[in-house]
Amino acid sequence: MLPMDGTVMVESPSLEKLVQEFAALPGIGKKTARRLAYFVLNRPRQNIEPLAAAITEACEKVKRCSLCHSFAEEDPCPICQSRRGAKTICVVEKFSDILPFENAGIYHGLYFVLGGVLSPLDGIGPENLHIPQLIRRIASEGIEEIIFALGSSPEADSTILLIDKLLSGSPVKRSNLARGIPMGSELEYIDEVTVLRAFESRTGL
Amino acid sequence: MLPMDGTVMVESPSLEKLVQEFAALPGIGKKTARRLAYFVLNRPRQNIEPLAAAITEACEKVKRCSLCHSFAEEDPCPICQSRRGAKTICVVEKFSDILPFENAGIYHGLYFVLGGVLSPLDGIGPENLHIPQLIRRIASEGIEEIIFALGSSPEADSTILLIDKLLSGSPVKRSNLARGIPMGSELEYIDEVTVLRAFESRTGL
Repeated sequence: MLPMDGTVMVESPSLEKLVQEFAALPGIGKKTARRLAYFVLNRPRQNIEPLAAAITEACEKVKRCSLCHSFAEEDPCPICQSRRGAKTICVVEKFSDILPFENAGIYHGLYFVLGGVLSPLDGIGPENLHIPQLIRRIASEGIEEIIFALGSSPEADSTILLIDKLLSGSPVKRSNLARGIPMGSELEYIDEVTVLRAFESRTGL
Repeated sequence: MLPMDGTVMVESPSLEKLVQEFAALPGIGKKTARRLAYFVLNRPRQNIEPLAAAITEACEKVKRCSLCHSFAEEDPCPICQSRRGAKTICVVEKFSDILPFENAGIYHGLYFVLGGVLSPLDGIGPENLHIPQLIRRIASEGIEEIIFALGSSPEADSTILLIDKLLSGSPVKRSNLARGIPMGSELEYIDEVTVLRAFESRTGL
């Protein structure tokens, strides 16, 4: 425990390991990781075991739905099960993008998690996304409309373009979420591209 | 899985539980907790099990040193063991306050973790701190100097005052970290109390 240079290791190995594991989480730096580790050690045993158990349990129970690729304990997931037969599918990048739709309660169709968007610079090509599965599902379930909800970026646009091309000849309706000024925002803080798109897509009163 | 009102639970119970456990950590809100949970589920199994294991292992192995109350796997902790016989003790609020001293390499004496500072509004009285243990240790180990490193707050000041009073009559030397302008800061952004203290404690050139 006493290194060669005479200094003492203040943090024990298992504490240091816990700090490293927390620091590996996204958005958690070394300092926050250390704070979390101390917090965990300060809590009574019975209050902290649930965290470790929840991690293990979630990793064991939660799987990907084979139809829409969202997280679920059952396969197909509750949404795919309960909305079987719906003819509209909303294509999102990742599972968490489903939540705003469900929270708003505005949409009652199916979802499809693409698993990302095309991004050659990050090495994400069509083969890394669930594009073939989407095309197959559209055909096999007789989907009539696809709504792309992929966010607003050149990568998202080229992903939509590719899927649109793969579906050329198919009668399925395709739409994209409207681009424009978000609610509650002040115009002076909006970037130029958003203003440009909002201007081009201006709607009659 | 289909609630009475016809809406579908998007997140599975074990996913929801994981989100809640993350959100119970300090400084982690519901949104960050959700992001962490998705990250955990997205990682391959073998990369995430170490997190759960590290939590369990740290909780099992890391204890409080019976002499200084800092976290350690051994008792006494490495610092108390290797510096046995030192006559100076540095009193800190919590374990993490030891790190800046050890990182700076400026201090080679003992430490003592008080476990907090007096804060009647938060219900923290003398009985919640390790004050009797500190007094006992000072006597039994023949400590000659106490350095208070309790941060700069009225609560810290009243804690120091109480310990000072309990030691009245004892020949032990007591000192407090200097208060003043921190390194690298611009005077215009320093609060008045800090400026006042720095002015009062100004040192000759």
